[in-house]
Amino acid sequence: MKVAVMGYGVVGSGVVEVLQTNNKEIVKRSGQESVDIKYILDLRDFPGDPNEDKFIKDFSLIENDKEISVVVETMGGLKPAFDFVMACLKSGKSVVTSNKELVAAKGYELLEAAKENNVNFLFEASVGGGIPVIRPMSQCLAANKIEAVAGILNGTTNFILTKMVDDNMDFAEALKLAQENGYAERNPAADVEGMDACRKICILASLAYEHHVYPDGIYTEGITNVTLEDVAYAENWGGVIKLIGATEPVEDGDKIAVYVRPCFVSSHSQLANVNDVFNAVLVRGDALGDSVFYGKGAGKLPTASAVVADVIDCARHLEKRKLFGWGPAKENFVADTMELPISAYIRFTSSDAQGAKDALTEKFGGVQELKRENQPENEKAFVVCAGSEKSLREELESLSNKGDFKLLSLMKIADF
Amino acid sequence: MKVAVMGYGVVGSGVVEVLQTNNKEIVKRSGQESVDIKYILDLRDFPGDPNEDKFIKDFSLIENDKEISVVVETMGGLKPAFDFVMACLKSGKSVVTSNKELVAAKGYELLEAAKENNVNFLFEASVGGGIPVIRPMSQCLAANKIEAVAGILNGTTNFILTKMVDDNMDFAEALKLAQENGYAERNPAADVEGMDACRKICILASLAYEHHVYPDGIYTEGITNVTLEDVAYAENWGGVIKLIGATEPVEDGDKIAVYVRPCFVSSHSQLANVNDVFNAVLVRGDALGDSVFYGKGAGKLPTASAVVADVIDCARHLEKRKLFGWGPAKENFVADTMELPISAYIRFTSSDAQGAKDALTEKFGGVQELKRENQPENEKAFVVCAGSEKSLREELESLSNKGDFKLLSLMKIADF
Repeated sequence: MKVAVMGYGVVGSGVVEVLQTNNKEIVKRSGQESVDIKYILDLRDFPGDPNEDKFIKDFSLIENDKEISVVVETMGGLKPAFDFVMACLKSGKSVVTSNKELVAAKGYELLEAAKENNVNFLFEASVGGGIPVIRPMSQCLAANKIEAVAGILNGTTNFILTKMVDDNMDFAEALKLAQENGYAERNPAADVEGMDACRKICILASLAYEHHVYPDGIYTEGITNVTLEDVAYAENWGGVIKLIGATEPVEDGDKIAVYVRPCFVSSHSQLANVNDVFNAVLVRGDALGDSVFYGKGAGKLPTASAVVADVIDCARHLEKRKLFGWGPAKENFVADTMELPISAYIRFTSSDAQGAKDALTEKFGGVQELKRENQPENEKAFVVCAGSEKSLREELESLSNKGDFKLLSLMKIADF
Repeated sequence: MKVAVMGYGVVGSGVVEVLQTNNKEIVKRSGQESVDIKYILDLRDFPGDPNEDKFIKDFSLIENDKEISVVVETMGGLKPAFDFVMACLKSGKSVVTSNKELVAAKGYELLEAAKENNVNFLFEASVGGGIPVIRPMSQCLAANKIEAVAGILNGTTNFILTKMVDDNMDFAEALKLAQENGYAERNPAADVEGMDACRKICILASLAYEHHVYPDGIYTEGITNVTLEDVAYAENWGGVIKLIGATEPVEDGDKIAVYVRPCFVSSHSQLANVNDVFNAVLVRGDALGDSVFYGKGAGKLPTASAVVADVIDCARHLEKRKLFGWGPAKENFVADTMELPISAYIRFTSSDAQGAKDALTEKFGGVQELKRENQPENEKAFVVCAGSEKSLREELESLSNKGDFKLLSLMKIADF
């Protein structure tokens, strides 16, 4: 079997490395006589690379080569990845991708194209890097109704939060360390503002609830406003702050909640102990209960390993398609986060902090006060339960309009 | 598609429940027009059961019914489960089992029979109950060399150890509580003596290293000798005691180590925080690094959910076999545990404790002393590194022959 790899960056070169290093085992497990890379598509030159003879710059060589049955897309981005992947599927080639942006934006379209052309479109590496998540979730899905999916889906932000909790570094310091270690890009926005995690939870929500969930309009809040004071209150509450991407059915299953936001996570949760650049995904099934899949969420070889597993799966299903229940988007399927009930940690300053507390207690249930060291007299922190996040925010807004009340933090209390 | 269920105990009745409750989704995911239970084989009567019309006592009805394409075996034990399963495979029916005893003893034979008859033999539920382990391990395997598999594979013993660590209960008390909660059987030997975990690690080793590993002769030590003193020393060392089943290549990959034994597990390990009846399996791949799969290792619906996922997989592969690399057993493939290097925690009493310490220090490296509250003067506890467990045990034996030296505990220090 001949394979083409499009994009020779970190992941693409890892795929080539794994396919060649473990070739003997891969061939055996593929049920093929051989699994060889025929082309590597990249606009850059790689003089001296051991695969120098395989580099091409013209995509049509792949598209028109009948010998190629599986194409790996590790270019990233939507352009030209989408056009190339679509062309491959239409010319009867299965495609494996690690490109979460592509899957989150175009998953349904590409799965439909794969169906029409009786080939496979697989994307295990797009979520959780090397951790098998999509395959076990499909298994879980097979026999369960999925009651929730929640995960720590971004290694960069998890590294930063771990440093804030364990080493008392502030956000800026921890980000700098992440950049020095190569865990964060020079422009870290996609990670620290939650967009990367948002794409991943959209992919998981689309799989779990069978309608394409697009990232646009999903409630997405990053970690740039998380402070060491928040970390201290979380500890006092009995947990840690994690950037959580989650989805679950709401309103009797007519809609789903989908969000990415920093949450208080109880130290008893299996997600609390997931530290550094590790990722974890919790899947809650009606029959199975909670399963958690944990591992390195990124990195050259872990991600490559997930891509190669998909390549093998393609090889074994060349004449049979793997089914996903991923259907088209549905209008109003994603609930407005502001309309949903919330248990939230809030922190504020006010010269009449007690008065603000009383107002909140009168309006909302479950008001539990939190403490920290060196807490200024005009600062208070609580956990409150509100029938809707909107009602909570409106009350806080109305407090802000009176006197010097200032809301400093509002974070969801995660329930897994 | 018609299904037969053999054995209407806890798991079997759960399978029937899940197949019927989630039937709509299951049919959709199976790619079949319907998925219906035609027979339930059980020697007992279940008057008033909603499926009363499906009960049969004569296996040959299943064997000879061409309409049955998938048979679920949830009877447990080897007799008559083995004969029945073999007969089903030979009559062209795929079989799904949750029976770890059967898979550990007869996995290779049954997989060969499945191959010859072009049907599937699937057994996800035999390890880790509802946690998807075998499927993600196959994925991991696909692109990785497996450097180790290690797990907390038995919920009963994990519950007991959790109570010992968290609530300072001794073994007998914790076992009693486990029995009261229905987590341990009246005769708990198979659990507390490690046999159940042994079967599971044998199944995982057979999959990971491609030769059938039989439970007989595998180093298997249960938790009956674990004391609260050991728990205290483990805490001082910086971890907890867990019953670990593990396998890894040794001697340049020519052999594998396989064992079940109580181990010191560092509190930084992802296995340390796996508590109560939960199970977890860590898979270490050369490209992927560590992945951990966590969830409820037993229970009616979790296990049933794994069985049903396999049934769906059978339905989708009625004319195509799922490949496992599980080959025949190989002579001398499993290394003698006593010949392998070990880092071990040891605890002893001696009126010349210092002399014993000096003798051990002279002979072995890495001697690190541990402390506990109320430690008697004649008791010492260490971590030592030995070139082979045999050499360590021989030295301890020779100390025992001098004076009143008495070895109280010896546990492996886990390295994951």
